[in-house]
Amino acid sequence: MQAFANKNLLKFLLLNVHQLSKLLQYPRFAHLDEEQAWMMIESAGLFAEQEMFPYYKSMDETPARYDGNGNVLTHPQIKKIFSVAADQGWIGGNASFDKGGLQLPEMIFSTGHFLFQAANNSVQGYLGLSGGAAGLINSFGNLEQQALYVPPIYEGRWQGTMALTEPQAGSSLSDITTTAHPTTDGRYLIKGQKIFISGGKHEAAENFIHLTLARLQGAPAGTKGISLFIIPEFRPDNNGKWVYNDVYCAGDFQKMGQRGYATTHLSFGDNDNCIGYLVGEANKGLSYMFQMMNGARISVGMCAAGVAMAAYQYSLQYAKERPQGRKAGEKNPLQPPIHIIHHADIQRMLLTQKSIVEGSLSLGLECTRLYDLCEVTEGTEKENNFLLLEILTPIMKTYASEQGIRSVSQALQILGGYGFTTDFPIQQLYRDIRIMSLYEGTTGIQSLDLLGRKVTMQNGKALLVLKNAISQTIREAENETSLCVIALQLETELQRIQRVLQFLQPKLISGQIDDFVADATVFMEMTSLIVIGWQWLKMGVAAQKTLTTSPELPASTQQMLNNTLHTLQFYFRYELCHTQALEATICNEPNLTQLPLEAWENG
Amino acid sequence: MQAFANKNLLKFLLLNVHQLSKLLQYPRFAHLDEEQAWMMIESAGLFAEQEMFPYYKSMDETPARYDGNGNVLTHPQIKKIFSVAADQGWIGGNASFDKGGLQLPEMIFSTGHFLFQAANNSVQGYLGLSGGAAGLINSFGNLEQQALYVPPIYEGRWQGTMALTEPQAGSSLSDITTTAHPTTDGRYLIKGQKIFISGGKHEAAENFIHLTLARLQGAPAGTKGISLFIIPEFRPDNNGKWVYNDVYCAGDFQKMGQRGYATTHLSFGDNDNCIGYLVGEANKGLSYMFQMMNGARISVGMCAAGVAMAAYQYSLQYAKERPQGRKAGEKNPLQPPIHIIHHADIQRMLLTQKSIVEGSLSLGLECTRLYDLCEVTEGTEKENNFLLLEILTPIMKTYASEQGIRSVSQALQILGGYGFTTDFPIQQLYRDIRIMSLYEGTTGIQSLDLLGRKVTMQNGKALLVLKNAISQTIREAENETSLCVIALQLETELQRIQRVLQFLQPKLISGQIDDFVADATVFMEMTSLIVIGWQWLKMGVAAQKTLTTSPELPASTQQMLNNTLHTLQFYFRYELCHTQALEATICNEPNLTQLPLEAWENG
Repeated sequence: MQAFANKNLLKFLLLNVHQLSKLLQYPRFAHLDEEQAWMMIESAGLFAEQEMFPYYKSMDETPARYDGNGNVLTHPQIKKIFSVAADQGWIGGNASFDKGGLQLPEMIFSTGHFLFQAANNSVQGYLGLSGGAAGLINSFGNLEQQALYVPPIYEGRWQGTMALTEPQAGSSLSDITTTAHPTTDGRYLIKGQKIFISGGKHEAAENFIHLTLARLQGAPAGTKGISLFIIPEFRPDNNGKWVYNDVYCAGDFQKMGQRGYATTHLSFGDNDNCIGYLVGEANKGLSYMFQMMNGARISVGMCAAGVAMAAYQYSLQYAKERPQGRKAGEKNPLQPPIHIIHHADIQRMLLTQKSIVEGSLSLGLECTRLYDLCEVTEGTEKENNFLLLEILTPIMKTYASEQGIRSVSQALQILGGYGFTTDFPIQQLYRDIRIMSLYEGTTGIQSLDLLGRKVTMQNGKALLVLKNAISQTIREAENETSLCVIALQLETELQRIQRVLQFLQPKLISGQIDDFVADATVFMEMTSLIVIGWQWLKMGVAAQKTLTTSPELPASTQQMLNNTLHTLQFYFRYELCHTQALEATICNEPNLTQLPLEAWENG
Repeated sequence: MQAFANKNLLKFLLLNVHQLSKLLQYPRFAHLDEEQAWMMIESAGLFAEQEMFPYYKSMDETPARYDGNGNVLTHPQIKKIFSVAADQGWIGGNASFDKGGLQLPEMIFSTGHFLFQAANNSVQGYLGLSGGAAGLINSFGNLEQQALYVPPIYEGRWQGTMALTEPQAGSSLSDITTTAHPTTDGRYLIKGQKIFISGGKHEAAENFIHLTLARLQGAPAGTKGISLFIIPEFRPDNNGKWVYNDVYCAGDFQKMGQRGYATTHLSFGDNDNCIGYLVGEANKGLSYMFQMMNGARISVGMCAAGVAMAAYQYSLQYAKERPQGRKAGEKNPLQPPIHIIHHADIQRMLLTQKSIVEGSLSLGLECTRLYDLCEVTEGTEKENNFLLLEILTPIMKTYASEQGIRSVSQALQILGGYGFTTDFPIQQLYRDIRIMSLYEGTTGIQSLDLLGRKVTMQNGKALLVLKNAISQTIREAENETSLCVIALQLETELQRIQRVLQFLQPKLISGQIDDFVADATVFMEMTSLIVIGWQWLKMGVAAQKTLTTSPELPASTQQMLNNTLHTLQFYFRYELCHTQALEATICNEPNLTQLPLEAWENG
């Protein structure tokens, strides 16, 4: 897997930084030890290497495409991947034993998927959506629904999807218009259009189970009138046979990237014969859907980190092998060219990537660890884990995707003109990763979620939990002489968040909500830099401790840990330093982004 | 042309900000008045709108492609474009009358090309290269060469190219190995490989005139042993017939973007029958080539600004027309959705684009104005114009391309998921613009040029001229009450450059060149933000003056000028503020980007 991911680094993050062993002490996960868990990752790596990575380019060159007749033609390998994934537990392995899963910690399950994402981000989505849809049915569906739909999904025969977006509504879910009319037998007739439905139709599954948001007749306007339905493409008739359910794939979207991943337009009930099955209670659909949505947001962030890691690994290898030019101080043209990794500017681009990729990945693992802890803890502890996960989710999604785009761009730059040609994989990674800041709520939506909901929830309690978590890492770092200065720097960054919120709070209190959130994206950028600084400090503490307490480490591990400590310094000097400007941008009057329409008449 | 460029804004930049009329007072340009010059721009806009813009998408969908047999198949419209461009003077119009041109100011010629670049960046390169190659022959070739090669290029029948890059050398021109052996009749036998040669072969030209760097037998190593040759694909024989000159197109490069633009691999002298004609003196080739190269760098910057402007115009239009969501403070879901331009985050993305696009364009026009002034001024004045152009060239190329990438990405984000689909043009612009930071010297190379050569040249004289120019704008701004604060802010930014150089200077003096330039790219980023701040202040002064002195302006012009003043404020608050962090990054020890190879062994 070395071609697309750094295995040693992954192991360090899982075992040392995020202390997998602590998680495995909880009864839910006690069936696994550290070694077994790592073997799962190794097997995921092998699967990714053998069945996914070799098809990355061809899936781009022969994109998923609509056949004009209700079907989407996809790469034949996808069927094989579904089958192996099902066998190895990579569709439902994070479900509990009683739901047919392997009761894997989310941290392990997601790390496996991270390798799939790094190897071939066009295929992981199919598996991830299936697992997420089944998980949603397990959580909120009734036993009959669970028995009917979950096993074929976990067996890799059926595809689960999430069907939210409609053409007229886009990000504004309160405006969806797909309707559900109750029938006399307790089911619902569905009518409506959904677009951008990933995996909504393809050749590798026998049935498609669309977890769909729709509006019941007479439901309240807005998000409080949205219900969740299971809408299968083939539904069971009264004799237990599966019959066509009037779910028609009306077309697909051809995209700049992720071209192996089918993006469909679905039409429900063109012939008034589409049945939906209500999940849970009516009008609570959006809150249910957010279980899947939150998982998907973290997964998109992990995917961005995976794509960026693949690009980083490739450009690092290239930089080691490509001879070109001489050091700036070398004036003798007869000296042989050096490998470009010796140029400072190349190292700057590599370290920028490393900062972003490993920072994102570490935050992603933090999120999955919190997800697991929410499952196994109780009371205040559980509440705090939940709040921390709530506030970190939009940050993970946004930082990893926005900075991931920049990271892959640096990888491309290292290859020079070659990076722009289709002979090299970086341009594909560059096109693919661009979708990540749009999926599952754009950066603008995530930023409104962070500042408008997560920061203000329970009188700022989630933010307090976050600050406490960061402070704890700072305290640990203060015990390491080499990290004292950096720890102090992060402490002052925490005060920055406080100052910004003090500036913004009067707007919130006086009900100037539009003013309060006007710079939400800038706030997101600032906060996420600080949160990633926390993750780097955490990595630094773990690296320093390992170096100090294990004097007989192999040289290669020492090098890796030293480079972690180096990158921590780099991140603070080259990346985190921008928070000051972002603070100044926000804490200024008047706000500049609320011009009247007339101002825009002439561009 | 409103679909891809803002005409009113262009006019304001040319006439008010960069005061075209002053340039037209010089005898060389006195044959034109402001109105005639603007009519040239109008006609370029019409040409771009009618002959280029409609083919933008299809040139992407049917890329230029090698036929396996020495030819590159290209879009049939390119031939038409060559013909119209020649008729209207857009290939050689910037040449003087005695060289067969229209003696247009470069500022007008480049603005015309800017419209081509905005309309269809895959085709402008063909024209730009032809003009640049002919210009190089006019400057340094002998009269016979001028008579033989320039007219067919200006007539749009022949294609000029620049052939520098070789597979093993990349950016390191000192390592090129293409050889030139003198023959007994004063010509040279050429042998070698050139890659990434834009327009090196296609269907729209009858002959290809490659301005090629090669090494004479026995020439000194490095850049001091490089000579410039004219190598035509068909050469004149002794009877004046044109015979094949053993220049073979051995393949092409398929690319992520600019797919309509042929990128070729050329093989010279496979059959030992390729003749090159020396331009000027032996071993001075690189200095000659830099005339074309410097022009190409500014043109690449203008192209990036053009592509980014097209994306900006598109996303602005979309934002005005797309209804979605409500203001954050609006809790009533029954209120109708608003157009997304009313969301603060959308305005932030629009203003970010406007800052970058118009800032880049203004700097590009500044450069072309200086180019013209170098032609018409004498003595110290000419020297100062030259130095200012020298120091601004790498900044123009780098800021416009690096920030242009970010700008187009913001345009794509405004379209949401649609922006990622091939149904909308933004994804093509997004792919196309990515090449700009690689063309004609990567960002790393430009940054070394800025800090390592331009800042230090003549004991810092170029930098001094730049500072004086910026100070002059600051003085003008101080006369406008509304601009005082911003002017003061820019003054402090000038001090920042001084501080950074004071920090770096000891390294230079003590010969630690590698240390001196290690953060050259960060220095570039910082300096370019300040230089663009200068351009914004300049635009602000012109806007304020126009508003003050012309009370009866049409409302639309007033709006445009007010939005210019608004964007000036935005640029300083959201963009320029980052210089402080960049200063802190540079002014720190030890440098972090010079790790030994071992450190990278484990990623």
